[in-house]
Amino acid sequence: MKVTFKSMTTELKAGVLWVSIDNPPMNLIDEKFVQDLITLLDETQKDDKCRVIVFRSSDPDFFIPHVDMNKIAEYTAVAATSGGPDDISLGALYRRLSESRPVTIAMLEGRARGAGGEFLYACDMRFASLEHGVIGQPEIGVGVYPGAGAIQHLVRLCGRGNAMEVILGSDDWNAQEAERIGLINRAIPQNELLPFVTALAERIAKFPEAAVRLAKRRINAAGLPPKEDVQVDSGFFQILARDDSSAARIAALNERGFQTRSRAELEFGDVLGEI
Amino acid sequence: MKVTFKSMTTELKAGVLWVSIDNPPMNLIDEKFVQDLITLLDETQKDDKCRVIVFRSSDPDFFIPHVDMNKIAEYTAVAATSGGPDDISLGALYRRLSESRPVTIAMLEGRARGAGGEFLYACDMRFASLEHGVIGQPEIGVGVYPGAGAIQHLVRLCGRGNAMEVILGSDDWNAQEAERIGLINRAIPQNELLPFVTALAERIAKFPEAAVRLAKRRINAAGLPPKEDVQVDSGFFQILARDDSSAARIAALNERGFQTRSRAELEFGDVLGEI
Amino acid sequence: MKVTFKSMTTELKAGVLWVSIDNPPMNLIDEKFVQDLITLLDETQKDDKCRVIVFRSSDPDFFIPHVDMNKIAEYTAVAATSGGPDDISLGALYRRLSESRPVTIAMLEGRARGAGGEFLYACDMRFASLEHGVIGQPEIGVGVYPGAGAIQHLVRLCGRGNAMEVILGSDDWNAQEAERIGLINRAIPQNELLPFVTALAERIAKFPEAAVRLAKRRINAAGLPPKEDVQVDSGFFQILARDDSSAARIAALNERGFQTRSRAELEFGDVLGEI
Repeated sequence: MKVTFKSMTTELKAGVLWVSIDNPPMNLIDEKFVQDLITLLDETQKDDKCRVIVFRSSDPDFFIPHVDMNKIAEYTAVAATSGGPDDISLGALYRRLSESRPVTIAMLEGRARGAGGEFLYACDMRFASLEHGVIGQPEIGVGVYPGAGAIQHLVRLCGRGNAMEVILGSDDWNAQEAERIGLINRAIPQNELLPFVTALAERIAKFPEAAVRLAKRRINAAGLPPKEDVQVDSGFFQILARDDSSAARIAALNERGFQTRSRAELEFGDVLGEI
Repeated sequence: MKVTFKSMTTELKAGVLWVSIDNPPMNLIDEKFVQDLITLLDETQKDDKCRVIVFRSSDPDFFIPHVDMNKIAEYTAVAATSGGPDDISLGALYRRLSESRPVTIAMLEGRARGAGGEFLYACDMRFASLEHGVIGQPEIGVGVYPGAGAIQHLVRLCGRGNAMEVILGSDDWNAQEAERIGLINRAIPQNELLPFVTALAERIAKFPEAAVRLAKRRINAAGLPPKEDVQVDSGFFQILARDDSSAARIAALNERGFQTRSRAELEFGDVLGEI
Repeated sequence: MKVTFKSMTTELKAGVLWVSIDNPPMNLIDEKFVQDLITLLDETQKDDKCRVIVFRSSDPDFFIPHVDMNKIAEYTAVAATSGGPDDISLGALYRRLSESRPVTIAMLEGRARGAGGEFLYACDMRFASLEHGVIGQPEIGVGVYPGAGAIQHLVRLCGRGNAMEVILGSDDWNAQEAERIGLINRAIPQNELLPFVTALAERIAKFPEAAVRLAKRRINAAGLPPKEDVQVDSGFFQILARDDSSAARIAALNERGFQTRSRAELEFGDVLGEI
């Protein structure tokens, strides 16, 4: 990559672009990350040397905890610079991620919640550390709404009943349980995770590109939700994020250290049940 | 609830309405149960104190064994009093259950077969006792047809291959196997089941209602089958239930104690293979 | 059956037609197999004594390894003699298999890859030997394309993420992992496989035919992919099979014994990663 990123580092090796999300203090989604993701998709779209992207995190505790609740307007404005006039949301940008030229693999070693979970589902595949991977969609428990694809993806990946449990329960899911219901491809012991993902990514990177791209496109055509449904969900997120009903709960979370490196973020699922 | 039920008991606690199906001698679906379900849905629709309904059974052996084959006309007539002019079936009433204002959780400790299984799938989530939960769709083995949603739900929850095995095989599934294929959310050891369901139900009952209802509605929009498909299945049930082809097998089942507290009901799957 | 098959043997017992694929040297799909499959479907369509078909293999190593790459034109020409003017592909013939009058069960004891895997998904149910069953969709790794239904079936059976891993990864899946992601109904220990399949097949064969056929038809209506999508995939296979991009990899495979009883076929997934 001849471009510079502010929220991630990149390294190209054997056709695989290793992208490490590195946006201190804790990888919250903000305008820097959204801009970098747009740049990354733009650059890899025209670069046939990057056949596979692996996303990981430089922070051992957090992959992406969720969006920065104080920067929704800012990152949404940046997201709106990508795609067409109806694609002004994080969900629409994630759709571009799903339709990216390279194959995308998420390697999860910490927590991915909210729009961090939705980032995972937008990738083509996702593998999590058995010991350290945690996924959650806590939006409903906060009083907001999963507006970047979780509803649509989870029904298709896990079925209606499990989608209800994940989303209405708003709790944390460890890697083993996430594998069981189909949230992720596999839960893999920490010491085997990097070798597994490396082998798979480098394997695919060697395969003929025309075949890989065509298969990805056709799997997406059958497996991705209609764009319109994610647009509707994006709209509901914007409405509920401004609604009073979530204010009291967000205030209670803030008292407990929400959006800081605290128990509120480390054990979000538990804390949500306590307030 | 200020109403009286004939086939169930209710208790509201911490925003959770505990409904225990109590319709002796063995919880067969009849006109009393259907009327009570309609009343329950009507009442909870306007009651914002009931945020979650948990369905369980007062009978340790049977959640709902199936419909009372001698009362199909009676309960169908009652079901027809609910909903619109095209919604004259148990399947249409179950659809109202799926779209209920409260979140619904089924807690299965005994047998749920036929329209009892379909009741489970209509709920938002379902958890079963690892030791005692049993699910079956024995209709095809009897020569009738699963007309209240099983076909549509199972394809979406379990995939086409597993749906074929459950429905064409007409056998009993224990909780562990039911979890494996996605029929239920989880199989939980009996002594942990009530605490688990209580914690989940009370957790959701505390979350902001606007967010919960919206998420439920959107998950349903993506995950429920089209109403028309269930209507078609309802029609096929009515046709096959009157067809001669099932008469011989129902007679053979009757000889073995069908619709009584006998081995034919306790071990339905096995008995069906013997006749 | 009053007909003679060149690539399979048949035996009718207790309403179950046991079909053993027997097409030496290694059960590659060729014009003989396609013709026999057409004949089998034609004959069983009018034979109410055959209620269930079980497909197995006479070759302990190979169920169906894949199509004979040297006979694509030949078997496609034969496939074109079945079905309507738009149904000129193996995928369309497999659709006829999915919609067959008898219930179909695949019993997998060796390797099924490529169009062999797609044969499995077209069947109503599939059970594999825990020790010996292997499934793979190696097309993309070869530079060709799974054109007989894998893309469409896998998204529906396994979800988008697992479909990406199976198809883009192009690797072998053992029976246990295949069960985990929903590729097959069950992985069953070798010494229990035949008794299990026999019991299930004979059980269904005793059930009233009208109910069985109706349920199968309705499950298919909800669970099979649109024919048009398989037609599109069939077209892509024909294009990529003639494309230069796969020539170098097929040449490399040929050097290693592709389409012979060699390590290239026994350990296809591994060999594909080495070239």
